[in-house]
Amino acid sequence: MAGTDRGLTPVQGGPHIILVDPQMGENIGAAARAMYNFGLTNMSIVRPRDGWPNSRAIANASGAHEVLERAQVYDTVEEATADFHLIFAATARDRDMVKEVATPKEAAKRIRQSIPAGHRCCILFGGERAGLSNDDVVLAQTIITVPANPAFSSLNLAQCVLLVAYEWFQFADQTPSTVITDGHTRPANGAELNGLFGHLETELDRSGFFRPSEKKPNMVRNLRNMLQRANFTEQDVRTLRGVVASLTRKSVQSPK
Amino acid sequence: MAGTDRGLTPVQGGPHIILVDPQMGENIGAAARAMYNFGLTNMSIVRPRDGWPNSRAIANASGAHEVLERAQVYDTVEEATADFHLIFAATARDRDMVKEVATPKEAAKRIRQSIPAGHRCCILFGGERAGLSNDDVVLAQTIITVPANPAFSSLNLAQCVLLVAYEWFQFADQTPSTVITDGHTRPANGAELNGLFGHLETELDRSGFFRPSEKKPNMVRNLRNMLQRANFTEQDVRTLRGVVASLTRKSVQSPK
Repeated sequence: MAGTDRGLTPVQGGPHIILVDPQMGENIGAAARAMYNFGLTNMSIVRPRDGWPNSRAIANASGAHEVLERAQVYDTVEEATADFHLIFAATARDRDMVKEVATPKEAAKRIRQSIPAGHRCCILFGGERAGLSNDDVVLAQTIITVPANPAFSSLNLAQCVLLVAYEWFQFADQTPSTVITDGHTRPANGAELNGLFGHLETELDRSGFFRPSEKKPNMVRNLRNMLQRANFTEQDVRTLRGVVASLTRKSVQSPK
Repeated sequence: MAGTDRGLTPVQGGPHIILVDPQMGENIGAAARAMYNFGLTNMSIVRPRDGWPNSRAIANASGAHEVLERAQVYDTVEEATADFHLIFAATARDRDMVKEVATPKEAAKRIRQSIPAGHRCCILFGGERAGLSNDDVVLAQTIITVPANPAFSSLNLAQCVLLVAYEWFQFADQTPSTVITDGHTRPANGAELNGLFGHLETELDRSGFFRPSEKKPNMVRNLRNMLQRANFTEQDVRTLRGVVASLTRKSVQSPK
């Protein structure tokens, strides 16, 4: 694939992004960056207002300029879509036509599902001012509309490309919803925690913290419970034992 | 709420977006637009490089300028976060610390879950060049990292704000994965479809389409099945009956 030849690492089967009548080079560049953030590398451009190549697009692509270098430029949407089997049109405007409207998530699912069959997919995005024409929308089987604030639903061109690319990437992404970074350590085990608790409670006993003494069992439980919530690491326990030791040491240099 | 007073329609309980050391007004404006696209209206800004207000931010907000007008400016992250109970830090960089890392989707879920308890949530985003410092990240309980192309994971500031706001909106959004726009009509019913099929098949019989005649039943089934896939509306059926009638009419004006 051209992508890997040129050093890009496209994810197989990603949809082509077709920008129709884009106006600002900045947005073309931002769209390229957004695409590449989520593994898409194939862009086509129909009638870029300011010609092609465009230096503002390159400046705004922030490292995704290879997406721009590989971009194909066309005179008509018909030519740009000629080679595709599954054609989506991204638009937020209501059209007076009978047409299926899918969320970006649903579109991502269908594109993924079409990969084994070898179907080629593309998504049309309209220009900044007018969006896609009805004639462009008719060329697509399905409209993609991003669910958004009904009072302010108009998305910037590159932002719209980003969300569609994001959902495409998300669909097959295996990232767990949360992980704990390890910081080169591991969770403390029971022995280490009990060592810390014992150390702390011995010193608190010595300093008269547990008064009245009949409250001590409950106070110990509360302290331990509070400290357990922090999920200390082995390194944390060593740090805290140092803290306890330091607090109970006689001052080396008392203020005069 | 200030939001509704000013004509905005914020969704209750949305997180505050705190931009730390943002450089380009364009990105602050784009972030405001992205926020408002997904119903977020509360922005704070710590040490904006080019001062505040910023005309480029307003130009790039494309109608979300009210978000900017309401933005609070702070000198330190500590002041900006003083009032919040649940603090997230958006960063893609690996930090050498033990810290929970959540996806935007998981963060959205936690923020939604904290609303009934009345907890106030904020999300820190770093500036374009250096992102958040480790000291900023320590102020948060949880890191948000957007799963992205490992070879190109650095998101534009406003794009990152967009994805977090999008997931927050998605979490409670009820949009069905697909709908069919109605175009002021309704699906054709069985009688209408059968009327069309009968009309078409009668004309095809007349013009000698069904040959050899023993193949007719199978040809009829294939035709009907193909046409059923289009999910015709009542208006479509009328249009198609006009098409059949027109095709079978003697030319009014034959070419001479």
